[in-house]
Amino acid sequence: MSESTANTRKTSSEIYAEALQVIPGGVSRNTVFHKPHPYYASHAKGAYVTDIDGVRRVDFANNMASLIHGHAYDPIVEAVIAQLQRGTAFTMATEIEVAYAQLLTRRVASVDKIRFVNSGTEAVMAMMKAARAYTGKAKIAKAEGAYHGTYDFAEISQTSNPSNWGDPHAPNSVPLAHGTPPGVLSDMLIFPFNDIETTLAILDAHADDIAAVLIDPVPHRVGLSPASNEYIEALYAWTQKNGALLLFDEVVTFRVGYGGTQERYTVKPDLTAFGKIIGGGFPVGAFGGRADVMEVLNPHQSKLLFPHSGTFSANPITLTAGYVAMEHYHQEAVSRLNELSCVAMKQVEEAIQLAQVPVSITGAGSMFRVHLRPSPPVTYREAYQKPEVVQVIAKMLDYLFNEEKMMMINTCSVMLSTVMNQTEIDYLSEALLKAFRTFKPEIEAVQSKEV
Amino acid sequence: MSESTANTRKTSSEIYAEALQVIPGGVSRNTVFHKPHPYYASHAKGAYVTDIDGVRRVDFANNMASLIHGHAYDPIVEAVIAQLQRGTAFTMATEIEVAYAQLLTRRVASVDKIRFVNSGTEAVMAMMKAARAYTGKAKIAKAEGAYHGTYDFAEISQTSNPSNWGDPHAPNSVPLAHGTPPGVLSDMLIFPFNDIETTLAILDAHADDIAAVLIDPVPHRVGLSPASNEYIEALYAWTQKNGALLLFDEVVTFRVGYGGTQERYTVKPDLTAFGKIIGGGFPVGAFGGRADVMEVLNPHQSKLLFPHSGTFSANPITLTAGYVAMEHYHQEAVSRLNELSCVAMKQVEEAIQLAQVPVSITGAGSMFRVHLRPSPPVTYREAYQKPEVVQVIAKMLDYLFNEEKMMMINTCSVMLSTVMNQTEIDYLSEALLKAFRTFKPEIEAVQSKEV
Repeated sequence: MSESTANTRKTSSEIYAEALQVIPGGVSRNTVFHKPHPYYASHAKGAYVTDIDGVRRVDFANNMASLIHGHAYDPIVEAVIAQLQRGTAFTMATEIEVAYAQLLTRRVASVDKIRFVNSGTEAVMAMMKAARAYTGKAKIAKAEGAYHGTYDFAEISQTSNPSNWGDPHAPNSVPLAHGTPPGVLSDMLIFPFNDIETTLAILDAHADDIAAVLIDPVPHRVGLSPASNEYIEALYAWTQKNGALLLFDEVVTFRVGYGGTQERYTVKPDLTAFGKIIGGGFPVGAFGGRADVMEVLNPHQSKLLFPHSGTFSANPITLTAGYVAMEHYHQEAVSRLNELSCVAMKQVEEAIQLAQVPVSITGAGSMFRVHLRPSPPVTYREAYQKPEVVQVIAKMLDYLFNEEKMMMINTCSVMLSTVMNQTEIDYLSEALLKAFRTFKPEIEAVQSKEV
Repeated sequence: MSESTANTRKTSSEIYAEALQVIPGGVSRNTVFHKPHPYYASHAKGAYVTDIDGVRRVDFANNMASLIHGHAYDPIVEAVIAQLQRGTAFTMATEIEVAYAQLLTRRVASVDKIRFVNSGTEAVMAMMKAARAYTGKAKIAKAEGAYHGTYDFAEISQTSNPSNWGDPHAPNSVPLAHGTPPGVLSDMLIFPFNDIETTLAILDAHADDIAAVLIDPVPHRVGLSPASNEYIEALYAWTQKNGALLLFDEVVTFRVGYGGTQERYTVKPDLTAFGKIIGGGFPVGAFGGRADVMEVLNPHQSKLLFPHSGTFSANPITLTAGYVAMEHYHQEAVSRLNELSCVAMKQVEEAIQLAQVPVSITGAGSMFRVHLRPSPPVTYREAYQKPEVVQVIAKMLDYLFNEEKMMMINTCSVMLSTVMNQTEIDYLSEALLKAFRTFKPEIEAVQSKEV
């Protein structure tokens, strides 16, 4: 291997100066962007990441919730090394694809058949296209503020704000990217999360044209509060009555239950998108559901409604890593991790009490989010952070990163991994207690402004 | 590792019977679909793939043109194993991202700045969105029949046929998937490849609304004939004059020159999409170009025109593999491979002469395609294969696969790799000669029908 790929002993700041010359803003992912410069990872193992400047931190972000067993998990490393010697991708299928499809369809009751793709973005896009192909209709409805990847239809109203979000009873379709075609805006309907009456009224107004209702059952950017069972039941009943499909985005939330968050509801989605943890640390996506709906993808059909392929889809490296990751994330591991997360949330709540700060916490399974407001938000508009709140959170996260040596997701969220123990939880709650105490005046100041 | 991920000693036919139960049509990629069943890869090394039934074949498909050094290339395997132990993905940037961005921007003259994504589909989608964000316009024009991944806008008219393609001077926007929203159709304009006059007339009719002209300079499914320099110059001049951008899709064609196929033209695209070989066998995509255009992605901007992220984008496994692959695909390696390809094309042409079949061949760099027609096609409509032609090609490819033990892409195309030598080229031309002789009556029969 050449010099240039080896560790060059540059600092993060020096590498970033070079990055700015060849990458817009110096980053390929805005999630790793940080002022004055992002940090560059050197190596990681389990729950700990060491950056190129030599600082080791506890990792509560786990590559945006995608590493359920933390970093460089030995059983995954071993299995991937074995597959590497046999080849990484072929113009043929591989046996692991079938074994992994069997594992996931056994695990998720609503999924009769499944297809693999390369990212959560590709999974949601293909799921939406499958719903259109099955119903022959164009419009899809989604929750205001929900993140579903970078397909432009899926992005509408992901970051709406008070200046453009409009009437709470009929939220505007707000583009994320400049230049979004008008047809993309008009073919997406936006509803307020967890509000049955308003959501159904919005759906009813376009009943004949709706292919699907797309929902993340615990939407991170909406506030990380779970959808109520009554809400999911109401969406499902509406789709059933109106010839539409119910689509779950479980890219992030699959970790919540052995069979995904959907286990917790009395009705099941028609299709589900997966990603993140099912790749064992490698690029992955998948979507699946009712056999008759997935039939739109079957190349045996004389009239194939949804032709679909992908050079790296179902590659045996990703699927080997994913298979091992899910085999080790068995029922018992899920329960243990969720219990650890309950303990963590309780300890963080205690820290909130001890520091006497107007802060709340939401979450499900092994993920939770801290909000700088006294009561947990339910809708996106409640969870929405004004610029001054964003600033206090950024300062708190910088403090935690630099002083307390821990990483969280930039929404002030935590994603646990199975390699964590009470040690890391104590570390987390103690660090948060210090942060709450340190930033109490600023947290209170943005609160009083809120009122 | 569990029993179920080990080689189970099942046959391809047995595995496929299981696949049909859990995957629609039994495949995640239609490109590996084959009747009565697809074949399952066991292992591969260099130019040879062994399937699970124990048959070893020469691989002229190279995972749909993505493996420039063939399978399990030692320098890539070693570098990836080293990175595996350090972690596969972080909520941080990594140094290899910057090193690789430097390598690619040095290599491709038109690319000042670049961003990494997870697939060619994501690269083309992000490039189209960047063009819309930069220009504030919605419409994009593309060549009839060109494949640009699975983003629905990019898919329009990918498989139009005589029943729906309409007037050759104003080709219809034909949806690939059922249920494609009408706005997607109306925001894509379709032109005939390499036809300057008709293309410019179509562009002129929508001059004010066009964000970009998207073109693959050697479009595989249009016929694998290179765009003429005059054509690219005309497209570029039109975009310059009308405030639009010229987008190159070099996902497949980057292999053609050290700096991509674009080296061969006197004008340069504003943005280019990459994929396939730049991942060294791992899921990859990238897009880049003019610094001022790429600025739409810069999170430093107070008004960010194109917010964009991705969990696995720029992951250090893909970028390490890709970096090593490109380091070894240096100027000399490109030249050597292209020369080998010239020899191969010449030998195939000799086989055509020897067998006296009405067959032609097109290509560029290290890729070529065999057509069952006496003269090389230029447009998609010329290259279009009627069902009876498709059937003869399928039979020929089956013969080559089963009897001659070699793999080609299902359009009857060949993608060479640097680990091939004269031995494999002789093998290829001799096998094709046998195939031409064996199927001569059928090739002639579909010809006479064509007339």
